[in-house]
Amino acid sequence: MPTIRFLPSGASVDVNKGTELLDAAKRVGVDIEAPCGAKGNCGRCVVRVVEGALKSTDDSILSVEAQNDGYIQACKAVITDEDTTLDIPIPFANHGQFTDSDLDIQRIAADHFPKAWEMHSGICCHKLSIGLPGSEVSLSDHERLETILREHYPTQKIGIPLDVLRSLSTRMREDGGNISVIVHVKSDSVDLLEIQPRHSPDTISGVAIDLGTTSVSIRLTALSGNEGTITKHGYNQQLTCGADIISRINYAKKGSRLKELRKKALDSINSLIREAIDQLKLDSGQVLSAVISGNTTMIHLLLGVPPENIRLAPYTPVSFSFADYTAKELGLNVHPLAPVHISPAVGSYVGGDITAGLLCSDLTCKEDGISAFLDIGTNGELAIGNRDFILACACSAGPAFEGGGLQFGMRAAKGAIESVSVDPETGKASVNVIQDSKARGICGSGIISLLAQLFKTAWLDASGKFNRSRSSEFLEVDGRQARYTIVAGDKHAEGASITVSETEIENVIRAKAAIYSAYRLLMNQVGIDFDMIDRFYIAGGFGRYLDLEESITIGLLPDIKRSAFEFLGNTSLIGSTMLLHSKEFRAKQQELAGSITYIDLSVDPAYMEQYTAALFLPHTDDTLFPSITGDPIA
Amino acid sequence: MPTIRFLPSGASVDVNKGTELLDAAKRVGVDIEAPCGAKGNCGRCVVRVVEGALKSTDDSILSVEAQNDGYIQACKAVITDEDTTLDIPIPFANHGQFTDSDLDIQRIAADHFPKAWEMHSGICCHKLSIGLPGSEVSLSDHERLETILREHYPTQKIGIPLDVLRSLSTRMREDGGNISVIVHVKSDSVDLLEIQPRHSPDTISGVAIDLGTTSVSIRLTALSGNEGTITKHGYNQQLTCGADIISRINYAKKGSRLKELRKKALDSINSLIREAIDQLKLDSGQVLSAVISGNTTMIHLLLGVPPENIRLAPYTPVSFSFADYTAKELGLNVHPLAPVHISPAVGSYVGGDITAGLLCSDLTCKEDGISAFLDIGTNGELAIGNRDFILACACSAGPAFEGGGLQFGMRAAKGAIESVSVDPETGKASVNVIQDSKARGICGSGIISLLAQLFKTAWLDASGKFNRSRSSEFLEVDGRQARYTIVAGDKHAEGASITVSETEIENVIRAKAAIYSAYRLLMNQVGIDFDMIDRFYIAGGFGRYLDLEESITIGLLPDIKRSAFEFLGNTSLIGSTMLLHSKEFRAKQQELAGSITYIDLSVDPAYMEQYTAALFLPHTDDTLFPSITGDPIA
Repeated sequence: MPTIRFLPSGASVDVNKGTELLDAAKRVGVDIEAPCGAKGNCGRCVVRVVEGALKSTDDSILSVEAQNDGYIQACKAVITDEDTTLDIPIPFANHGQFTDSDLDIQRIAADHFPKAWEMHSGICCHKLSIGLPGSEVSLSDHERLETILREHYPTQKIGIPLDVLRSLSTRMREDGGNISVIVHVKSDSVDLLEIQPRHSPDTISGVAIDLGTTSVSIRLTALSGNEGTITKHGYNQQLTCGADIISRINYAKKGSRLKELRKKALDSINSLIREAIDQLKLDSGQVLSAVISGNTTMIHLLLGVPPENIRLAPYTPVSFSFADYTAKELGLNVHPLAPVHISPAVGSYVGGDITAGLLCSDLTCKEDGISAFLDIGTNGELAIGNRDFILACACSAGPAFEGGGLQFGMRAAKGAIESVSVDPETGKASVNVIQDSKARGICGSGIISLLAQLFKTAWLDASGKFNRSRSSEFLEVDGRQARYTIVAGDKHAEGASITVSETEIENVIRAKAAIYSAYRLLMNQVGIDFDMIDRFYIAGGFGRYLDLEESITIGLLPDIKRSAFEFLGNTSLIGSTMLLHSKEFRAKQQELAGSITYIDLSVDPAYMEQYTAALFLPHTDDTLFPSITGDPIA
Repeated sequence: MPTIRFLPSGASVDVNKGTELLDAAKRVGVDIEAPCGAKGNCGRCVVRVVEGALKSTDDSILSVEAQNDGYIQACKAVITDEDTTLDIPIPFANHGQFTDSDLDIQRIAADHFPKAWEMHSGICCHKLSIGLPGSEVSLSDHERLETILREHYPTQKIGIPLDVLRSLSTRMREDGGNISVIVHVKSDSVDLLEIQPRHSPDTISGVAIDLGTTSVSIRLTALSGNEGTITKHGYNQQLTCGADIISRINYAKKGSRLKELRKKALDSINSLIREAIDQLKLDSGQVLSAVISGNTTMIHLLLGVPPENIRLAPYTPVSFSFADYTAKELGLNVHPLAPVHISPAVGSYVGGDITAGLLCSDLTCKEDGISAFLDIGTNGELAIGNRDFILACACSAGPAFEGGGLQFGMRAAKGAIESVSVDPETGKASVNVIQDSKARGICGSGIISLLAQLFKTAWLDASGKFNRSRSSEFLEVDGRQARYTIVAGDKHAEGASITVSETEIENVIRAKAAIYSAYRLLMNQVGIDFDMIDRFYIAGGFGRYLDLEESITIGLLPDIKRSAFEFLGNTSLIGSTMLLHSKEFRAKQQELAGSITYIDLSVDPAYMEQYTAALFLPHTDDTLFPSITGDPIA
């Protein structure tokens, strides 16, 4: 009677050959989740055979690669006559690829992450004993290496870049022919990236990059080994060349300015990578893979590809999808041969940040109901749909929600006011500052909170004007202009007050109107009402601090049941991290990008109408916000 | 009754459906060669259907690509019911790819050149009307281009390098969407090289490069269009770092000297390319393909790959075969994306110059008898065999035959003494100078001629010493040293005499001994006698001026029937030119390189014995040179 042992618990049980694995597990109290009722189509019950063998009663939904790695669907597995040890994989999110303090990640259900058997980054390290050349054979170094690699890659074309070829003879002799070979495994070929002495540290890292119009975030993470993960945020240095996409495209038109923008994007990314590498005490050559997600224009600028026609009718970008160029070709300061996956775009204004971001939700896999996915950034992008269809559109919100375009605006970092409450009587604001430090400015969630508070306390009217019939020491009115002091100068170390002007508030209202009207129009066009939305995912760098009620109050988010909302955080960055770890996800994303229908709102005359109607707090049409307007503020 | 018309003559004939094509041709006096007796296996009778159709009675030996281009074997073709126009291809050698003054090419039988249906350089230019983007479709420029290219390449992966992507949007709009797309067609993918306005000149050129230890030659030739062909010769600038392969390998060992040698090789090549491009009034961007052939060490140095282990037991080069790197990666000053084919090597000392050179002979296709192929350069390489087997070996001759290592040595160029006759009485030399100009030095054929003449007139004895018992105003003896004046100073514009010393003559004898003993040992090893050799091909930059009888007299060439010899010229360069024009030849070469058995003479103790025995004029063993020694000189 074979013994079946379950890892990580170590529990074991003796059962008859032919017993179903799920039964065997149950007997010894091991819980293997099989939510599809053991129908074999959810893939949730996958376990890994570490020793021995199981028999599958049916075709597997797993890739051949995963099956070769020992993965098997528990619900289809029966016991053979061999003693067998099984490993029940722990979810990706707990794999150490993400740190505990990483709130964004904790928000995203483990279900959405690549499963253990989908974790093929495409970058593999082979420890080989290749020996020194003997006198009996007259093979070149190249042939000796290829012969051994053929055991792993019998049919693929093996490519040796010139840089690797140049190091071949030295590396293959350094340690008596004991080497580490790092390769990039593609569908039909295998490219050598690096040859090292065998005893060299086996840390292979990758970097996920979210290149936004205003912000840039990177996550450096180990693909093998245990060098940990680190996330870094910064501004896009292109900000000095224009606040939004259209200004950047215009800026790029003249002379060598496209090169300047490209350099600024690269500098923004490379300085964050440098910080992260230094902090983890890595060498840049250990970062052997990269994924970049960004909107269509940002990717054009990063590649040095003219974005001009994105702005001109008929709005034709140069490309939506890109080959894996090398880090050297692109100008990223990681291993020069590191392949860089660029997330494919859907349309001129729905970019790779959305195709990466959608991987963080279950919008694309739900069979019933309809979900919405809203990414709030300098552009707002919305996708709605389910497994059968996905529509997507975008609008230009401007940088207000990322701290741009406001005198005291800043990124959601230390010193940023992230929420505000306003005294109805005195108009005085009390503020919460990130990391409880001294306030240096106000971030997106802070400005939303401020508007909601000022509106609810009637200091601000529905049109976004300060109520000139009331007076407060915090409100300074000068004819048609008014300015509100959030934090008074004397309480502030640097001496200056933190204020917001009526014009700046107008900008924020324009931003929320652009976003609200865009997704409302999209829904109108396809005949979907807000109450048909089961789930409303919210993404964006600032999403984690966003107050739901206040966002609805100002009319940024729709007034639907609160339980429908789910904040996902910076999905462009998290999605990129998933893509870094899983070439199956990269294939999935490519398919996804091809299946989304892009709706260009800019050509729809109804958009301006919708937009104008949304330039009120919360909206000119009260019935759209019953929970806000139906319970009028005193 | 269908009408069959034959081009280029224009003759036409009406024949019944079902008539054999060869019969139809005969009726109208058109001569289609079918030397295999219409068995269908020689491919010599191939014609091209320009209009209409023919039916083939049997499977074709032609590639699918060639058949798609309309090529058909005349001996298997029968007339259909369609009026048909046929083109009888003229041989490659008369195609304008070679100029009439190109003696090297005229030496090589047209049979050895790629046939018309093998003339796929792999670089194709498509003239496309792609139009401007319309508002009805939301395709990117990339997708619009790919959609149209898919008509030509339905299944291949289409690759767009970053440089091309950057030019895409501009190029696709310049001329109302009329463009020329130049692509590199590979076995499983198609890479874009360049997009131009459609009306731009359609000249696509390629460059064939012979990188020798002493000399460098290039041939710039049109792959399409009619921009002519030009050949340029120069020295390898690495000469200042050592005269032969071993000195170069030693030189490369220290610090940044490998980079220095790489730069010198590139400079040598690039300056010749520049001259040729200027002369043909081309732009370097129009040179879209390159082939380089050279010995194993030269290729290592060109790539910046350490050659060190070629010299150290067990003599392991880094690689024998190489991917197609781009011109930019290699450092060639042609179109940066031009693919560069590097001829594969066979062994440490039998390089790509030999695998390219063998394509110029029929050694590899002969079924009966045995042929020999000797390439005389700074290294001497010999291959012997036929369709069933090929053995190859090499020896180090030194640069004497290329004008190196002699005070007055020079390349076979204007001003070089190419042949000499010596007065038996006075010892006075009469010289022939290339282009009848003033003598500036003596080239390889000149030095062979001089030695033979001095030996035949008994001024020089069999050991290479001047006969001190005779006196001549042209011979100056100073103890153990002697110096012979070939051209006296007063007759020479620059004032200096052209002389040769006994020590220099010794170097030449060493060179010929190294070559003779190498091929004799190889033949001994495999039990082949000189009289079993049907054909003895001689290659080398100087081959065209070589006097056969004199070469045998000094013991450089074997004393066999004179009709067996065939001079082929610089086969490394001519072979490279063929490879440039024909990817079928590139495949053929790859196969050839894999099928040659490399014999390393340096490990055979008998080599030194053979070498020492050959240090005589013509040889210590008189019986090997009966026609020279059996008829003793007075």
